[in-house]
Amino acid sequence: MNSDRIRLPSLLEKVKSADEAAALIKDGMTVGMSGFTRAGEAKAVPLALVERAKKDPLKITLVTGASLGNDIDKKLTEVGALARRLPFQVDNTLRKAINDGQVMFIDQHLSETVEQMRANQIARPDIAVVEAVSITEKGHIVPTTSVGNSANFVQFAKQVIVEINTTLSPELEGLHDIYLPEERPNRTPVNLLKPDDRIGTTAIEVDPSKIVAIVFSDLSDSPSNALPADSETQAIADHLIEFLKQEVDAGRLPNSLRPLQVGIGTIANAVTSGLVKSPFTDLVQYSEVLQDSTFELLDAGKLKFASASSITVSAPCAERVFGNIAKYKDKLVLRPQEISNLPEIVRRLGTISINTALEFDIYGNVNSTHVNGSKMMNGIGGSGDFARNAQLAVFVTKSTAKGGAISSVVPMVSHVDHTGHDTDILVTEIGLADLRGLAPRERARAIIDNCVHPDYRSALNDYFERACAKGGQTPHILREALEWHINLEERGNMLSKG
Amino acid sequence: MNSDRIRLPSLLEKVKSADEAAALIKDGMTVGMSGFTRAGEAKAVPLALVERAKKDPLKITLVTGASLGNDIDKKLTEVGALARRLPFQVDNTLRKAINDGQVMFIDQHLSETVEQMRANQIARPDIAVVEAVSITEKGHIVPTTSVGNSANFVQFAKQVIVEINTTLSPELEGLHDIYLPEERPNRTPVNLLKPDDRIGTTAIEVDPSKIVAIVFSDLSDSPSNALPADSETQAIADHLIEFLKQEVDAGRLPNSLRPLQVGIGTIANAVTSGLVKSPFTDLVQYSEVLQDSTFELLDAGKLKFASASSITVSAPCAERVFGNIAKYKDKLVLRPQEISNLPEIVRRLGTISINTALEFDIYGNVNSTHVNGSKMMNGIGGSGDFARNAQLAVFVTKSTAKGGAISSVVPMVSHVDHTGHDTDILVTEIGLADLRGLAPRERARAIIDNCVHPDYRSALNDYFERACAKGGQTPHILREALEWHINLEERGNMLSKG
Repeated sequence: MNSDRIRLPSLLEKVKSADEAAALIKDGMTVGMSGFTRAGEAKAVPLALVERAKKDPLKITLVTGASLGNDIDKKLTEVGALARRLPFQVDNTLRKAINDGQVMFIDQHLSETVEQMRANQIARPDIAVVEAVSITEKGHIVPTTSVGNSANFVQFAKQVIVEINTTLSPELEGLHDIYLPEERPNRTPVNLLKPDDRIGTTAIEVDPSKIVAIVFSDLSDSPSNALPADSETQAIADHLIEFLKQEVDAGRLPNSLRPLQVGIGTIANAVTSGLVKSPFTDLVQYSEVLQDSTFELLDAGKLKFASASSITVSAPCAERVFGNIAKYKDKLVLRPQEISNLPEIVRRLGTISINTALEFDIYGNVNSTHVNGSKMMNGIGGSGDFARNAQLAVFVTKSTAKGGAISSVVPMVSHVDHTGHDTDILVTEIGLADLRGLAPRERARAIIDNCVHPDYRSALNDYFERACAKGGQTPHILREALEWHINLEERGNMLSKG
Repeated sequence: MNSDRIRLPSLLEKVKSADEAAALIKDGMTVGMSGFTRAGEAKAVPLALVERAKKDPLKITLVTGASLGNDIDKKLTEVGALARRLPFQVDNTLRKAINDGQVMFIDQHLSETVEQMRANQIARPDIAVVEAVSITEKGHIVPTTSVGNSANFVQFAKQVIVEINTTLSPELEGLHDIYLPEERPNRTPVNLLKPDDRIGTTAIEVDPSKIVAIVFSDLSDSPSNALPADSETQAIADHLIEFLKQEVDAGRLPNSLRPLQVGIGTIANAVTSGLVKSPFTDLVQYSEVLQDSTFELLDAGKLKFASASSITVSAPCAERVFGNIAKYKDKLVLRPQEISNLPEIVRRLGTISINTALEFDIYGNVNSTHVNGSKMMNGIGGSGDFARNAQLAVFVTKSTAKGGAISSVVPMVSHVDHTGHDTDILVTEIGLADLRGLAPRERARAIIDNCVHPDYRSALNDYFERACAKGGQTPHILREALEWHINLEERGNMLSKG
């Protein structure tokens, strides 16, 4: 068994228990862990670290690809082991600690974390902990269900812990394409011209002497928590697909569209699922994360190829895909997130990028991260990498939240993650606003007329008209611009009067 | 004379008066004109259009590279000829018409205008009007002091008017490097690996039959309006240069730094000038605009090469450079703005990008465009193209304005052009805040301690501390977040009490 999974015999002696490996992580270290959208995180070692921290307190800076599964962020937070965390998270307990100022959270564009490490602008990991299906004859590491920042962490760290996940087939080898840009100033173009190009290696190259421990684990990825589409989610998908049909009819897109990037979550999943019944054919994905809907599209013969940095699916879908990986392997590739999200590639390919907004305002500025301007939800993730460079930058959200107490369309967003310069199409279940080539006042008209819930439309019209009377390129009444958010905070409803 | 400047004889018969050429521009047309930062705009034809519009009213959509000189925007506005304008402007009269809602202004990242035309997302020009020093044997167009979007406009338009500027030497030929990305999905990498690489042609390729008029002009570019450095501007430059020295000492930058992008204006010019006395050597620029300071650096032997999309200099500097172009030609290149600002190149080269902020907030969000959240100044220009992808994204501003009535550092910016995700270093004459790797609460501490004018420091500290007590990743008190701007609007001073 061990020699199947560890094909370089000299490494067999590095096999250790999770506790022994976790003991290599010292107080104050920067730790780079695998894991992207709750897929492919190391599991046994961080959980052993949690147990150790209960007896022997420590604090680390934890850097990952994106979010971790298996409640690892929750458990590390509960034992007080996180001093700093970057670049993304989705855990309730950690979120509370972040918002309480107990954990310093650095919310970053997901393509930039390792670029900043490469330039020594943020600390490189002292130690890397990465999940693998196997180690090759050369001692190189074959990742599991995500690549994330693992290859860079392994390159930067002085010590590497490999956690071999025995629940996943070694046949995953060949799925990955590991390519890292050169150091500046001698960097060359990233020679990826279409999503199915392979430009790297199938395993993470490493000097085997850096591998200080190999741990076996039989823990699985946490299943996707995307919910099935409801009527509003479905309406959003329908509006967007109808719009794309019109773009094809107008000759602005081919019937195969452009490479699709679809953010994670329920709405995004519904949009992709909706494509199964669409007239589009020969679709390709160039995305961060593949969800269940990718495999629906592949199975339906609608999708030719999907490139991403991770696969985050439901338990049944995981069984279908990873239990029959040979069937899918030539139609999939997993890349470092630096490449899946690279501005160079996103602009070259001209992706259609579909991401979820928390709220947007009448001028098309989008808040993806902060509830009422202060409280972090998850982080910006890769949405900025894509929206800035996509051919079509789409943001989707339901028009209201909390039973109608919150309008997702507001006079002024309480926090900006994507400026109006980067947003082309906004969609709610009410309808779709096409903002391309419009000045701010025209954008406001398109958004109010098409995207706002009827309960909020007259209040937004009133705000906008009075703001226009005051003047400006992007007319605002600053005294009222954040009033809806203040109402919500103080009285639980955006339209409550004091 | 004509045959020196028009080397394809069949085009000699296209020579027309400016009035005749302007008559080809029809009411309702989209017109693509040369011109970038008041350099290299067509002059005689738009001025003739102004005269014509006085008698024969018309409205056009005017698209340029960036700002125009010779009061062209002012005069076109005064005769009511502008229905829509993109992507940038700097004129007071036009600014007022924009803010009054009379001209629809679309403020765009300067690398994106032609990308959106290529994808047919905004209208392509019906007619292009571009300034040239000459037309080649093949009928191709040799631009003058800027390239901007001219090559793309010529490619997209059905009709092309060439305005030959006889004040500039035909020896400018060879200065330009015209390369345009291919159409998607067949686009290849832009194979530019260092600022002095040449990847294109020295003239704008065009089917000569599209050239419908050639006009001779003897009007010069408007001279640069950058002011000499004052003590505050100089202090900003000094702080930044000191920081760069520390980066070199720490091994994070080589002594030649990285390719420099420096925005236009007085502070930026002072920073570049300051490099003359610095210990750095073998510098290179990869910028949008070259100002007087570039030529100081070149003449001092500090700068090896400068790449940009335009040259905007004072009258004496213009005489020095364009009167001795042979001396400078092998150290300069002018490119389409799509290439000078391309995210792909900016990230590959890892530029140090220095741009001017109107205001920034305690979390590092930057407002480059809107006074008090509503009124447009100039536009975002290329700052977003650079800041997102630079190795070091620097924003500079004086700490106060209007005799101290305005603090440039505020609790929350009234408009966001660059989010904190994209800002690394903020500098005022007070000092420099290094935000790299900091969480928002730490960023606030660095900014308040280092950049804020003493008159505003205690008020910002008070806001920040009370906001932190409320909690959040990016703590704000929404009821007060914009109060400083409201004070300014209502009482003329940010700290005035009602």
